[in-house]
Amino acid sequence: MVKLENMKNLSLSDSVINLDHGDPTAYEEYWRKIGDRCTVTIRGCDLMSYFSDVNNMCWFLEPELAEAIKELHAAVGNAATEDRYIVVGTGSTQLCQAAVHALSSLAGTQPVSVVAAAPYYSTYVEETTYVRSGMYKWEGDAWSFDKKGPYIELVTSPNNPDGTIRETVVNRPDGDEGKVIHDFAYYWPHYTPITRCQDHDIMLFTFSKITGHAGSRIGWALVKDKDVAKKMVEYIIVNSIGVSKESQVRTAKILKVLEETCKSETDNFFEYGHEMMKNRWEKLRGVVKESNVFTLPKYPEAYCNFFGKTLGSYPAFAWLGTKEETDLVNDLRRHRVMTRSGERCGSDKKHVRVSMLSREDVFNVFLERLGNMKLIKNIDL
Amino acid sequence: MVKLENMKNLSLSDSVINLDHGDPTAYEEYWRKIGDRCTVTIRGCDLMSYFSDVNNMCWFLEPELAEAIKELHAAVGNAATEDRYIVVGTGSTQLCQAAVHALSSLAGTQPVSVVAAAPYYSTYVEETTYVRSGMYKWEGDAWSFDKKGPYIELVTSPNNPDGTIRETVVNRPDGDEGKVIHDFAYYWPHYTPITRCQDHDIMLFTFSKITGHAGSRIGWALVKDKDVAKKMVEYIIVNSIGVSKESQVRTAKILKVLEETCKSETDNFFEYGHEMMKNRWEKLRGVVKESNVFTLPKYPEAYCNFFGKTLGSYPAFAWLGTKEETDLVNDLRRHRVMTRSGERCGSDKKHVRVSMLSREDVFNVFLERLGNMKLIKNIDL
Repeated sequence: MVKLENMKNLSLSDSVINLDHGDPTAYEEYWRKIGDRCTVTIRGCDLMSYFSDVNNMCWFLEPELAEAIKELHAAVGNAATEDRYIVVGTGSTQLCQAAVHALSSLAGTQPVSVVAAAPYYSTYVEETTYVRSGMYKWEGDAWSFDKKGPYIELVTSPNNPDGTIRETVVNRPDGDEGKVIHDFAYYWPHYTPITRCQDHDIMLFTFSKITGHAGSRIGWALVKDKDVAKKMVEYIIVNSIGVSKESQVRTAKILKVLEETCKSETDNFFEYGHEMMKNRWEKLRGVVKESNVFTLPKYPEAYCNFFGKTLGSYPAFAWLGTKEETDLVNDLRRHRVMTRSGERCGSDKKHVRVSMLSREDVFNVFLERLGNMKLIKNIDL
Repeated sequence: MVKLENMKNLSLSDSVINLDHGDPTAYEEYWRKIGDRCTVTIRGCDLMSYFSDVNNMCWFLEPELAEAIKELHAAVGNAATEDRYIVVGTGSTQLCQAAVHALSSLAGTQPVSVVAAAPYYSTYVEETTYVRSGMYKWEGDAWSFDKKGPYIELVTSPNNPDGTIRETVVNRPDGDEGKVIHDFAYYWPHYTPITRCQDHDIMLFTFSKITGHAGSRIGWALVKDKDVAKKMVEYIIVNSIGVSKESQVRTAKILKVLEETCKSETDNFFEYGHEMMKNRWEKLRGVVKESNVFTLPKYPEAYCNFFGKTLGSYPAFAWLGTKEETDLVNDLRRHRVMTRSGERCGSDKKHVRVSMLSREDVFNVFLERLGNMKLIKNIDL
C-alpha cells in the first residue's frame, strides 16, 4: 500500500500538472464518503422524450431539478428565486451565450457591445467571438469602455480569475442601454462569505463549481424578465434542443443531498469545502510568503450569513503574480506547471490564474514546485 | 384496467396531438420490455471531471461510448469507422453546427454558402441563421444554388422530411470549393434498407432516432480529416465545454445492448422497429388511399444487407401532401393535429411533415382524425 502510494507520487512528480483548467476534482473524496445517498439508477425506458414539462416555458427543464435549485438557494441564502424563470443549460457556458444572444436580439441596435472588467474570465472572449456574430461584439475591458450604444456587462463575483467581489463598473446615466449578466459561479459559502441574497435580473450558476460535478455540464439561470428568459430558451433549443435529462436528474439528486447536508453537523458539504479551501490557501500563502518572489491578492473578511460568523475568502483560483518582470506562465511551464496567462484575462504577463481545485496530491506537487522556483530564482539573481 | 384505458383514450381524443416534433416515444415500450439490461447506476463520486480521455483529441468523449459506436456500426454495416475521428456532441444538432463552423473556419473566403436540397430539414435554416454568423450564410435550396465561392451542402439521407435517398446535387466541377456534411440520422435498418457502408468525409448520427432516447442529447460525427475534427472539437469546447458524461455512459450501455440484440432472434431491436414502422406506414397508406384527398411519396424496394432481404422504406416522418389547393398545416390544426409546414422545409403549403414516431395511442388518434378529414372534405365538395 505504502509502496503503491510512493510509486504514484514518483510518477506524479515527473509529470506536467495542469492547473490551467479549473477541473474541480478536489471534491471527489467527499462524494466518495457520502456513498449511496447520491447514487442514481436510470432504466432503459426512462427519460426518452425531448420534453420534461410541456407546461413550462423552459420545457426541457426537469421539474425535480427546478425544485432542487429553489430549495438549495433558499437553504444557502445566496440568491432569490421567487418570481423568476429558471433556464437550464449545458453548463453556465451555454447559458452565458444564451443570455448574450437574448439581450442582443432584444436590443434596438446591433451589434451590442459586450464588456467585462479586467482581469476577466478569459473564456468570455472566446464565447463572444468564435461564431463571429453580427448581433454582439466583444469590446474588452469594462474599465476603459466608452463606446456609445447598447452594451452588456458581464459581472463575475467572486471574480474569476482574481477572487474579488465585483459590481458593475460601466454604470451609464442612460441606464436603459446597459444590461448586466451576473455570473455567480463562485458565490457559494466554501469560497466566499454569503453577505446578501442576490437579486439581479440575470444570474448564472453552475453545478461544476458548487459540488465539483463538472462532467455533468449543468448550469442554470435565474431570470426576471419573461422575454429574456424566452429568448434564452429559444437559443438553447436551436443550439442543442435542450439539455441532457440524465445530467439533470442526477444534479437534482445531488443538490437535494447537498441541501440536506447544510443542516448537518457531521457531513456539511460547505463546511468540508470551506475547511479544504482555507487549508489550501494557508499553505499557498505560506509558500508565497517564503518565496519573496510571488504575490497573491488579499481579501477582506466579512460576516457570512450562511455560517453565521465572520470569515475570509478562499477563491477557486489563485491570481498569482510576481514582483519581477517576467513571463510567469512560461516560468511555471518550465517547472511543469500549466496555468492560464494573465494576458488572456485582459491583464499582464506577470500574473497567472492557477486552479485551487485539483486533487490533493496534484495541489501538493504544485506547492513543492512553486517553492523550488523561489530557489532557482534566488540562484539566478 | 379497461376503464382506465378508456378514460385515457377519452382524454386523448379531446386534446391537440403534436406531430410537429419528431419526439421518438414510439420505442419506449421496447425498452420497458428489455428491463434491467439497460439500467445504469451512477454514484455520487463518478464522472466528475471535465475530461474523459486526455490522450484523445476529443478529450470529452467517454472511451466506452467510442467503443460502442464502432461496434454498432460494424454490426449494422451502415458506416465505416476505420481511420476516422469520433466527435461526440450534445445531439447531432450541436455537431451539425460544429461541422458548419469547422468547414467555414477552414475555407479561404467567408461567408461560406450553406445549402440543402428542398424539401430540407427546417431546423437547418434556424441553425445556420440564429447567431447571424459572418462565417457562413444560409443560401436555401441546393437545387437552385448558383453562387460562386466556397459552399457546404447538407445531405440528409434518408431525407428529413420526405424519406428519399439523397446524394449531393450541387456537384461543381471545381470540387475543391464544395464540402459536404452527410446527416445519416435515419440511415438505420428500421427506416430504410442498408444498401451500402457509407464512407463520406463528415457523417452525423444521433442516438435520438436510432433507439428513441432523444432526452439524452447524444450525437456523434465520424470525421476523416484531422483538421476538421479538431475545429469541431474546439467549437464544442467553447459552446458547452464538452458533453454530458451521464448521457454518454448511458448511451454506451444502451448501444451495447442494441448491438447484442442485432444477433438475437427474439428481441432484435431493429426487427421490432422495422415491424412497427411497416405496420404504421401500412395503416397510414390505407387511410390516405381511402381519402382520395391526400398523397404520400412512394419508395423503391432495395436489398438490405442488414436483414439479408429486399425491403421497403418506412421513414420516421410522413411527407403528407394534398391534391387540393389548401394550407394543409392549418387544415390539420383545425383537426387538432400539429404538423410542420412544407413551407418551412423549402417546399409548399400543400405538404406537411408528420412524425411517425409518436406513442401508439397518439398515432391511432392521428389516423382517426385524418380519416375524418376526408369525410369533412367530401361534405365540403
